[in-house]
Amino acid sequence: MRKLETCLSPALYEPEQHAGAIVVIIDILRATSAICTAFANGAETIIPVSTVGEAKEYKSKGYLVAAERDGFVLDFADFGNSPFNFTHEKVGGKTIVYSTTNGTGIINLVSNGNEIVIASFLNISAVIRWLSKKEKDVVLFCAGWKNRFNLEDTVCAGAIAERLMATSLYSTICDSTNAAIDLWSLARINLPLYIDKVAQRTRLCNKGLGDCIEFCLTPDYTDVIPVLRDGVLKGFNSDF
Amino acid sequence: MRKLETCLSPALYEPEQHAGAIVVIIDILRATSAICTAFANGAETIIPVSTVGEAKEYKSKGYLVAAERDGFVLDFADFGNSPFNFTHEKVGGKTIVYSTTNGTGIINLVSNGNEIVIASFLNISAVIRWLSKKEKDVVLFCAGWKNRFNLEDTVCAGAIAERLMATSLYSTICDSTNAAIDLWSLARINLPLYIDKVAQRTRLCNKGLGDCIEFCLTPDYTDVIPVLRDGVLKGFNSDF
Repeated sequence: MRKLETCLSPALYEPEQHAGAIVVIIDILRATSAICTAFANGAETIIPVSTVGEAKEYKSKGYLVAAERDGFVLDFADFGNSPFNFTHEKVGGKTIVYSTTNGTGIINLVSNGNEIVIASFLNISAVIRWLSKKEKDVVLFCAGWKNRFNLEDTVCAGAIAERLMATSLYSTICDSTNAAIDLWSLARINLPLYIDKVAQRTRLCNKGLGDCIEFCLTPDYTDVIPVLRDGVLKGFNSDF
Repeated sequence: MRKLETCLSPALYEPEQHAGAIVVIIDILRATSAICTAFANGAETIIPVSTVGEAKEYKSKGYLVAAERDGFVLDFADFGNSPFNFTHEKVGGKTIVYSTTNGTGIINLVSNGNEIVIASFLNISAVIRWLSKKEKDVVLFCAGWKNRFNLEDTVCAGAIAERLMATSLYSTICDSTNAAIDLWSLARINLPLYIDKVAQRTRLCNKGLGDCIEFCLTPDYTDVIPVLRDGVLKGFNSDF
């Protein structure tokens, strides 16, 4: 039986507990939704970088750079963190260097020996199909916000966990997984209404950045599965 | 409006965010339930200590010592962590030195300038009345387990949070508080059944220590409010 666990915030991550597991990174408002959208729109490669300095250095070498901190586009960057930025016109066939407040640092935090896949509601069914085919334990890693717990990533983790458990391929004794499944059971009744109360929605709306929230809650917008290979993300389909 | 926040694990505690708030410590299986029981049964004072060494030193000075690690009574201690140990015969009128795997270390972790109160289902209504009378922000601090999230403390936090919010004295924009309230809304339907799935129940039952779980879920067994004063816990009633 494969083990299913959930990490509700980077501050709760225990790498030594998860050796060999696939880590599913969830940061739906907005990093992992944006990454899914970029690949859906034909991006070739995404290079996640943790620091502003690294992003700037790539920019100076001529790369296309998407970079934000606290929702605001960094002045040297080509664009920020909204999925709506990652249009086919802008990203089709391109390599994008990507740095966000939260999500991309986490990709680098957990990339030490674990296989990493990027999930959001936008590619949820594809990710579940792909995970089911792998003979591996799974950790659902909620990016949270500045090391805090957040609800939106937790309910997305719950949506994934519920469907993985339904395959009967996984078992869990993890309270975080059970909590996520329970919160999803409430959120699923009316997801946009549920997400109305999350703190990140308020943060985004206060900055005029709330326009993409509804889109980020769309299930199965794409079948693409962004996977980290040698430090860069590539988009695969669930048959690979 | 007073601010209500919830910390779902010691690993998520941000002391600088909570200056001046009352910290409500929740570790229902079993530390805070045992502390409430001790005061209900007439204990005079409880001295929470973090390390085994400190507990041993107090023992050598003739104190009554309750001390456990991972559920097992330490060999030099008078008894362990089950609320059933703290009978009137054993603790009435006494000072108890108390050291547990998780809970007592947390009391000392957060005691830096914040008023600290001990909560469990056993004294839930008394704690809520007492908090309501204070003009202060509140942090519900779930002890979790070895820095992990746990469900039982979270649903107890949710039960407290729901009732504090109902007073209209508090506001919250904290996702952890909203998650706790939502989980409580599911758990309350049948609390013993809900607690059946928590990892700590399995841990306790595997060690033959599950006998007190049902008792720990009893609402309002006592009106006592254990409050930390000068490093020691004293039991008060909600009129003080």
